[in-house]
Order: sequence, then structure tokens, then C-alpha cells
Amino acid sequence: MTTPWTQRYAQRTQRMSSSMIRELLKMTEQPDLISFAGGLPAPELFPVAEFEAAAQRVLKQHGSKALQYSTTEGYLPLREFIVEKMSQYGIQATPENVLITSGSQQALDLIGKLLINSGDLILTENPTYLGALQAWRAYQAEFTAVPIDDNGIQIELLEEALCGGPKFMYILPNFQNPGGVTLSYDRRQALVALADRYGVPIIEDDPYGELRFEGNHLPPLVVLDAEKLNGDDARPAAGNGHNGDEAGFFRGNVIYLSTFSKTLAPGLRLGWMVAPKSVIKRCVQAKQGMDLHTSSFVQMVAHETIKGDFLPRHVRRIREVYKTRRDVMIGTMLRQFPPGITWTWPEGGLFLWVTLPEWLDAAAILPKAIEQKVAFVPGTAFYPDGTGHNHFRLNFSNAQPEQIEEGIKRLGRVLAQELERTAELAYA
Amino acid sequence: MTTPWTQRYAQRTQRMSSSMIRELLKMTEQPDLISFAGGLPAPELFPVAEFEAAAQRVLKQHGSKALQYSTTEGYLPLREFIVEKMSQYGIQATPENVLITSGSQQALDLIGKLLINSGDLILTENPTYLGALQAWRAYQAEFTAVPIDDNGIQIELLEEALCGGPKFMYILPNFQNPGGVTLSYDRRQALVALADRYGVPIIEDDPYGELRFEGNHLPPLVVLDAEKLNGDDARPAAGNGHNGDEAGFFRGNVIYLSTFSKTLAPGLRLGWMVAPKSVIKRCVQAKQGMDLHTSSFVQMVAHETIKGDFLPRHVRRIREVYKTRRDVMIGTMLRQFPPGITWTWPEGGLFLWVTLPEWLDAAAILPKAIEQKVAFVPGTAFYPDGTGHNHFRLNFSNAQPEQIEEGIKRLGRVLAQELERTAELAYA
Repeated sequence: MTTPWTQRYAQRTQRMSSSMIRELLKMTEQPDLISFAGGLPAPELFPVAEFEAAAQRVLKQHGSKALQYSTTEGYLPLREFIVEKMSQYGIQATPENVLITSGSQQALDLIGKLLINSGDLILTENPTYLGALQAWRAYQAEFTAVPIDDNGIQIELLEEALCGGPKFMYILPNFQNPGGVTLSYDRRQALVALADRYGVPIIEDDPYGELRFEGNHLPPLVVLDAEKLNGDDARPAAGNGHNGDEAGFFRGNVIYLSTFSKTLAPGLRLGWMVAPKSVIKRCVQAKQGMDLHTSSFVQMVAHETIKGDFLPRHVRRIREVYKTRRDVMIGTMLRQFPPGITWTWPEGGLFLWVTLPEWLDAAAILPKAIEQKVAFVPGTAFYPDGTGHNHFRLNFSNAQPEQIEEGIKRLGRVLAQELERTAELAYA
Repeated sequence: MTTPWTQRYAQRTQRMSSSMIRELLKMTEQPDLISFAGGLPAPELFPVAEFEAAAQRVLKQHGSKALQYSTTEGYLPLREFIVEKMSQYGIQATPENVLITSGSQQALDLIGKLLINSGDLILTENPTYLGALQAWRAYQAEFTAVPIDDNGIQIELLEEALCGGPKFMYILPNFQNPGGVTLSYDRRQALVALADRYGVPIIEDDPYGELRFEGNHLPPLVVLDAEKLNGDDARPAAGNGHNGDEAGFFRGNVIYLSTFSKTLAPGLRLGWMVAPKSVIKRCVQAKQGMDLHTSSFVQMVAHETIKGDFLPRHVRRIREVYKTRRDVMIGTMLRQFPPGITWTWPEGGLFLWVTLPEWLDAAAILPKAIEQKVAFVPGTAFYPDGTGHNHFRLNFSNAQPEQIEEGIKRLGRVLAQELERTAELAYA
């Protein structure tokens, strides 16, 4: 290739990860393949009729406004709705603490643009969300990754990683993607304390928090940080001259991200960031250069759809359906998976995480699974350090229960054959 | 401010320009102020009823698809529509040459992300589009700016700037923002030849090209470059081993950008990039990390609105209305502006450009204009080199003809007073 562009982007793009999500999305388009690979919500739950009515009302009543340029911060009634919604989880924000983003992927890109310089170290969970790695590799970030277990990131291993001087920590506390695990209450407290002690801020990414099927909701890191801050004389408080532009809740260590992709519809590309006002102000400047603003039409139609009490009712319905699908998946795995294979038991969200015996390689098994018309994502992609060969991720939100049962049966057969084959090799 | 974020972004954000567009958009919200400052299309021309019908059809027929995740490249029927549309202007693309972006602002950000390293020199017109400067300053770009006149960028001054080794040139050939001028045919030929000779690619930004009120359409730079390429043995052709992944038209020096913001509605945030396949492929990877994809809902509703022959009819209507408004603006300026003030006569687009006597400063006049309830954008913001104090930009697309007349009268009085005052000072 000698187009004049080639040399110019070579340096930059060698740093970008190969586009695995994308290739996987393509794979799921084979009609007879049962895919547990994507991260797609159940499309039959999308509130299509409600959207249709909302789009009609918005265009009839505010057509010119919905189709015109608008402000970068986002549609004020939608930001007010988000403030009200988050207050139920203890997050005391004002609309000035909220920025509407084009999906929470854009919030990750914004954070990269504002915070990451070439070679900066970012602390993540190991494994972690692939899209965050992709967003930040574009800014030449390096990663230090701390293993997770059934209770989330392993706090006893965190301190050593913090000593490496990471720019920030990236944490998915609820039903983590890909692990499906939830950070325990004690670890949340410990994490917030460590972040404070080492002066390392936290990006709290919470796309799935509302989709809890069972167990008790745990407070977000941003809330624990605010509580600590307000009970801690050692840290500067609002009004003492150090934090002049911030007051009350949001002076802290945590930027909180969430999205309507899992509770409403991902095709909207609608997420939000909650942060101190000074951070939001910088992000607004950066977002202006990135896409001016998120579609006013989408923001107004989404707000018209969810205002009132629609969203909590709708989220309850999603929880019921996803719980059933998780139960079908795990039930079938218990019957059909060969011994020696373990997995996480998510209390919510979209994913569970499978661990194979150490000598098996999930990436090598994937082509055999696809041959049997079933797909998953091999673990390695989610590990910043490139380990994780004997893990894979399963999505349980997208397929119907009967498909889940059939797909897991197929996968069980593939795994049993693989175990048998490798056992033979071991004795040969 | 001592939030833990502050120090972390200080370095990055000191490089970003102060957010002038944003402040100006705020100003236009005063109800009794006549603003020529924004770049807003006429909202009364938005095809609201057509959108409403299209949204209904899309949601009824393809609701699940419109609300689900989709591919980063963009909705294929929309890309096919764009290919067909561009073929009328001589641009021979395939859907693989087209990437849907979240407004063409995102295309500018993408280009920055892929091509610009800290300190890289970008060649622009002087003045140029503020949003491009904002997007690329975030990547620590430096600028070398070549003056424009009534026929666009001054080719005789270009060669010296090219010797400085810019990474690429950024050119708005039609009804330039802010200048309102159009690059002449001869200069287009010369520009393409110089780009080739110096090996400096061109970003051709064409948001307004379809909004020509009079005169003849001129071929896009991307077309002239392809013609040159196909008639020029000295450059490597497809199939000779150098350009293996490219064939036919798109092997060249030019990336072409356009948008539906001015022909349909900016609130959609829907633009596109046309480029060699290898460039599109890299941009798709980068866009994935930025927002995964542009809203599938917006793409499908836009396509449903414009498919068939709606768009050309609609664009004809926009042209008629904007031509009337330009004529009213210039007609009133001829009667109401004091002598010694000149302006460009745009053959299309949304803007014209005013030149004051050298000793006047448009930024200093702006507060006085706002006092008289009329607004414009002072020139300096559009000059990468910070010159341009005696210029300002007027938008003629957004206000009604009677408002334009009244606003220009007010502005004429302000300018007359200013000239009188400074003349008195000169004789004092």
C-alpha cells in the first residue's frame, strides 16, 4: 500500500487493538448460529411502540428544536431526569454534574482525550471491558491489570499496582463485563480508601447496575467516596478555598459513567457521565471538538419515552427476562458441561465467565464451536496483559431460552470432546 | 481547584481553544436579539412531517434493528444512497469508500486521531472553520495558514507553506466557512497538482456544496485528483503492486467530507467521509473506540426520509430561501453600511464575510452591537494565526428576511457610529 495516507497513520494505528468485537458481531449474523458472543440486549424487549409514540409527540410539538443544533452538555430535561434517577442510588448530582454522551463509549474516549498522555499507566481489572482498552490504546496508554475473583478486583493485590503510579483506575463494580462478578461492599470501601490514600482517581463504569436480578443493591463507589469525603477532615472541603468551584457531593475521586443502552436501547447511542463541575466543563470543551453534541432528536425522543414512570416498569421486565435466561443457561451448563469447568454466577447483567482447565485454549476451541454453530468470546481479548487463554465469556441476554439450552448443549459437546482429546494426548 | 482531576488534565486542556461557538450559541438565545452569529440552518425548512412519517415506518417495520447495536461503518442502504448521490458530482465511490460519522465534526476528530502527532503542522485556509481548529488543537497540532481572496486560497502563496512540510491541507472549496468564497476552477487544478508534487494530502470539507444559488457547480478536488491520477503515468496505479487494496477512482490524495446537517437537519448529527478503502478501514477501527457507531435509529430514519426523490426537491427549496435571504442581507448592506466596508458575495452556503477598515477591531465592536440587539462572530477566532481583527462573519440562513433587514440596519448604525468616533479620534 502506497497511498499517501498509509505512512501517516502507520505509527498511530499499530497501537490500536485488532477489532475483535467487530469481527464477532459479523459472525453472529449467520442465521443458524447461536451466538453467546455479542453483548446485545434482547431486541424483543425494546419499547418500540413507546418510541414510535414519543417520536411523533416530539416532532409534532418540538420538531424544529429536535432537528436543530443544540448545546454540548445535552438536553436539560434529560439531564434532570438522570439526576432524579441517580438520586435513588444515593448519587446527589445537579444537572451541571451531568454530561450526555454518544453512548458511554464516548465517555471513555473523552476521558482518554483529557487524561491520557502517551505511555501513561491505567489500572484496570483483569479481565476488563474490551472497549475501554480500545479507546485508551488509541492514546498510547499502557495498562496494569489486577486480577478479579468472585468478589471483584482483588484488593490485596491492588496496593502493589497503585505503587506503579497509574493515572487512574477503571472499575466495573456491578456484574462486570466480562466477568459477571460484583465488587463486594467491603472491597468497595477498601477501594475508595486506597484511591484516596494513593491519590489515584476512579472511573466507575456502571452500565448494568440497574439490571440486578437478586441480592441487594450495593452503593456506587461515587457515593462511598462522597461519604468518606464528608466524614474526613483531612481532605479539603468546599468553601475552604481549595475547591471553590465545587460544592457538596461532587468534590471527590470518582467519575461515574452509565448508559441507556442496556435499559432502553443501544441503537440510540445515549450515555452519561457524572463528575465534578470542573471536569464536566473540560469534557464539554473536548466533546465539542468531537461531535458538537449528541443528537438532539435522539435525546428528546428518549426523554419523551422514559419520562413519568415508564423506565422502572420497563427495567423490572428486563430483569425478569434476563434472570430466566441466566437460570436456563446455568441450569443447562450444570447438566451438559463436563466436570472440571467452572463459571461465575452473576446476580445481574448480561454475561457470565467460564474457566476451563489450565491446559485448554478457548481461542483454539472457538473455530470448533463455530463449526457446531455456537459462539463465545475467548478470554484473551479482555486481558490487557494477554493472559486468560483458558477463559471465555458467554452472553445470556440476547438469545431465547430454548436457543440458550440448545447452544449450551452444543457447546457442552464441543468442550467434552476437547477434554477427551487432550486427556488422550496426556496418556499417549 | 484541587480536585484530583485538575492537575491531570491541565496539560492537555491548556492547548484547547476557548469555546467561542458555544458562548455564541448561548447569546443567540436572547429572544429580542437578531443573531447573525450562529451557523444554524433555517428551522422552518426542516422536513418535520416527513421525519415523523419516516420514524413511524422505520419503527413499525424495523423497530428491533433500529434500536439495536449495529456496525461501525454505518447503515448500508444509507451508504448506498450517499454513493448514488455523490456520483452525480463525479465522485465514483463504492459503499466501502464511505463511513457514516456522527456529524462531519466527528470526521475531523477521526482525522486528528489517526493522523496528527503532537507538534504536527496542518495547512489551512486563513480564515478557516473554527471547529476544525478545535478538533485538531486537541491533538496538539500547529497550523500554517494561507490567505484566501474572492477565489479561495491564494495558490501563489501556497507553495511556500507547503515547503514547511505540513501533514495535510484542510480546504473548504465551496462557499467557505467563514469566508463565503469559492475556490475557482483553475485554482482547484493547481491545488491538486501541488498536493501531488509535494506529497501533501488534502482534506476536502464540503458541507455546503449542494447549496449553490447561482453560477455553475465546480468539480470537487477529489474528482480532479482522480482525473489527474488516471491520466498520469508517474503515479502508481491499482494492480501494479503498490496499491493492491485500492482500485479505480479512490487511490488518491483527497479525503472528502460532507454532511446532512445543512441539507436535512443538524440535530441528527449525521455526516460522512469518502476515502480510499484502507483509510476507511483505519477510521472504522478508530471510530469503534470513539462511539461504537452512529445511532442506528437516526441513520434509518434519515434514510427513510430521503430515499426516493425527496432530497433534491428539498434542497431546491432551501436554495431558494437562502438565496432570498442573502439578497436581502446584501441589499440592506448596500443601503445601510457606511462606505469603506466591503464583503464577499457568496454564490451559495450560509455565510458572508465582512472587512472593516484596518484600524477597526470587530471584537471590540461586538459588545456595542449586542447592546443594539444584533450579533456576529468577530474574525479573529477563525484565524489560526490570531490575525483578522478587522473582519467578521455574518450568517444569512437562520433569520427571516424582515429580521435580516432590521438586524443589518442596526449593525449599519453601530458601524457608522464607530467609523465616526474613530475619524474624530484621528483628527483630534
